Amino acid sequence: MAPEAVLETRPARSGRAEAPALRLSQRAGEMQASPLRKLAAIAEERKKKGIRVYHLNIGQPDLPTPPVVFETIRSLNLNTLAYAPSNGMPESLSAWQRYLEAKGIKVDQKEIVVTSGGSEAIIFAMCAICDAGDELIVFEPFYTNYNGFATIANVTLRPVPLDIANGFHLPPADVIEQYITPRTRGFLFCNPSNPTGTVYSRGEVAGLVSLAQKHNLFLLSDEVYREFAYEGVSHSVMSFPEVADRAILLDSTSKRFNVCGARIGALVSHNPEVVQSAFKFGMARLSVATVEQLALVPLLNSPEQYTRPIAEEFRRRRDLVYGGLGQIEGVTFYKPEGAFYIVIGLPVADAEHFARWLIEEYEYEKETVLLAPAQGFYATPGKGLNEVRLAFMLNRESLQRSLLIIKEALKAYSRNKRSDS
Amino acid sequence: MAPEAVLETRPARSGRAEAPALRLSQRAGEMQASPLRKLAAIAEERKKKGIRVYHLNIGQPDLPTPPVVFETIRSLNLNTLAYAPSNGMPESLSAWQRYLEAKGIKVDQKEIVVTSGGSEAIIFAMCAICDAGDELIVFEPFYTNYNGFATIANVTLRPVPLDIANGFHLPPADVIEQYITPRTRGFLFCNPSNPTGTVYSRGEVAGLVSLAQKHNLFLLSDEVYREFAYEGVSHSVMSFPEVADRAILLDSTSKRFNVCGARIGALVSHNPEVVQSAFKFGMARLSVATVEQLALVPLLNSPEQYTRPIAEEFRRRRDLVYGGLGQIEGVTFYKPEGAFYIVIGLPVADAEHFARWLIEEYEYEKETVLLAPAQGFYATPGKGLNEVRLAFMLNRESLQRSLLIIKEALKAYSRNKRSDS
Repeated sequence: MAPEAVLETRPARSGRAEAPALRLSQRAGEMQASPLRKLAAIAEERKKKGIRVYHLNIGQPDLPTPPVVFETIRSLNLNTLAYAPSNGMPESLSAWQRYLEAKGIKVDQKEIVVTSGGSEAIIFAMCAICDAGDELIVFEPFYTNYNGFATIANVTLRPVPLDIANGFHLPPADVIEQYITPRTRGFLFCNPSNPTGTVYSRGEVAGLVSLAQKHNLFLLSDEVYREFAYEGVSHSVMSFPEVADRAILLDSTSKRFNVCGARIGALVSHNPEVVQSAFKFGMARLSVATVEQLALVPLLNSPEQYTRPIAEEFRRRRDLVYGGLGQIEGVTFYKPEGAFYIVIGLPVADAEHFARWLIEEYEYEKETVLLAPAQGFYATPGKGLNEVRLAFMLNRESLQRSLLIIKEALKAYSRNKRSDS
Repeated sequence: MAPEAVLETRPARSGRAEAPALRLSQRAGEMQASPLRKLAAIAEERKKKGIRVYHLNIGQPDLPTPPVVFETIRSLNLNTLAYAPSNGMPESLSAWQRYLEAKGIKVDQKEIVVTSGGSEAIIFAMCAICDAGDELIVFEPFYTNYNGFATIANVTLRPVPLDIANGFHLPPADVIEQYITPRTRGFLFCNPSNPTGTVYSRGEVAGLVSLAQKHNLFLLSDEVYREFAYEGVSHSVMSFPEVADRAILLDSTSKRFNVCGARIGALVSHNPEVVQSAFKFGMARLSVATVEQLALVPLLNSPEQYTRPIAEEFRRRRDLVYGGLGQIEGVTFYKPEGAFYIVIGLPVADAEHFARWLIEEYEYEKETVLLAPAQGFYATPGKGLNEVRLAFMLNRESLQRSLLIIKEALKAYSRNKRSDS
């Protein structure tokens, strides 16, 4: 870097009469605020007016955290909160290994990097395989925060549209193949899926595996809802030995153990270069919170006893919502096979307008519902306009009540519209 | 995005006889492993052979964490580890505000985003103001992890060389100005400085402030060593009202409270767009660990009682090291005004070779020292070749012993070299 060479380019700027306006980066401008929060402020205003609001919009589990977490925290005998090793504390790595083994995924501790939530695992994976402008294929609707991670990592997401008519399952390989470009570096998919609740069949994952081999791509598999598969099982990308070199498992304890606030996730791969790269990105941020790494060890060491009751409760809620949606006229839906979400089509032209009206104006016996317009889960403009995501974060009584309110609201909305026109 | 248009570009890849090798990103390749860890593995081997190793290489404080942190953790009454708000829990935001006010920095709670360590604050600031390929000016030698953050955020660091002869203080404005290009978006500086221990005078910070105004740049001020200023005081970028729009304070609790493993930092700015942008990047990763946000509230609420004894101990160590270095022939050094580091010049051609020899072969009464070669703190090739960084993380007796070993080692190394030639 020669300062002389730099000087040549300076007069252009210095020569301007006025300094240019102080501006943020383009990516700061592109960064969308979480669409899930758009209507939350309105909901708070409504509550102040004595209206009860059922929150079907958020993914924060309502069930308690297993008490063993707090017992562990209270019993920790630490003198110093020291930096943990950048790839994770030995206790946490060992517990992750045991957890994965219990799920049929055999990995060495050296193949794991403990991360600050699944979020950081996704950012590290993006940085490990993509340079600025490289592309990852996602399946739309997709977890909206993938947009944020892509913005941070300067990665372009190319969405393959899915269809509510087949429960948002994957299209055939030749359709997916059309979205592969010379800049494509991999697939990023969530299985079971947030926001659709879809669980990909073994054949569907095998299809992605074949495409990854044929086109030399990585497979970034976000499996944080692994335990929430109510029809069949969820197939880990790690169960395909033929892609051991290109499979990257992105995982998190948040949902399956109800420990969202602990921020403990992991990146796992049999490809030593990928793991080494994640380790190096990890070195830059030094370490993940010590207390939480230790606090979750008991959960990871014997997961079933903690995840089974949680998954069973969500299955009951899924059944209730699935049954209840059948009672609402004009709604398009399917049976979500996993996770604790469903994207449904409403008999309205603009679901965001409906959701806003619902929370701003509507009430049914002093109650209303907060929905997440699905538009925010799509990258392609104009997609998902009549869809909303429901999250099953309320007890069954409240869910039942919420469905009744939606049913009545749709009738009222339709009447309003007719009288408007 | 039209799949048709994409198809046109595909044959070039599909037409190849063999799939290209599965490769990681260029930035994954550029990402350096922490230079501080290079020699650590050798040190472990040496210890197994019965040699005592004094670690002068690392920045992990040896002092205990204030017990109130663990008392707070034990007394937390939580049922659910829920996601915290993405900008920070109200308790933490309020405590940060009080802490900053105690330091003479008046900000609104809305001007603070709690981050996962100072590391995340730096990444968010980089993303908020830089697009891929944009540049930040740093002062060399600089905190080596800035490289990692820049790689993640796709930002180019342009180092302005500093001089050990004036204790690594800043050069005049016209010299710094030569490094500004049309891609320059701001200055990133650490004050008091890791790795040099330099505390910039009010005039030096004012010089950067003027340059930032003149060239319309942001000021990213890493002030995590604020309390460790032994000569005069450290001047916060927030104490210059004329750059309220362009000053971004990057902060962390790690060093000043000895809570490195808690991973609690903050990004602070009077520029609402910067804060909003950091908030949005924060939304993508959802939240910072709940337990630690709450656990550090007592420290931030009344900082002096915790930071003063720590800073006093480091000042005593600084005095001891400064005095001791005067006893070692041929060493170039200066009086570090802050932090708990010093970069010194050794009378050797290659400090990394010396450091490796010291840890691999040398012993003085069954003891040796692990040093951090300063080369890793420079970006310009060939810079800092004869320098090492010392961290004052040992008690005074051990520091004294370490200096004696370095003194004897330099004599032996010099004798070896003569007998070699």
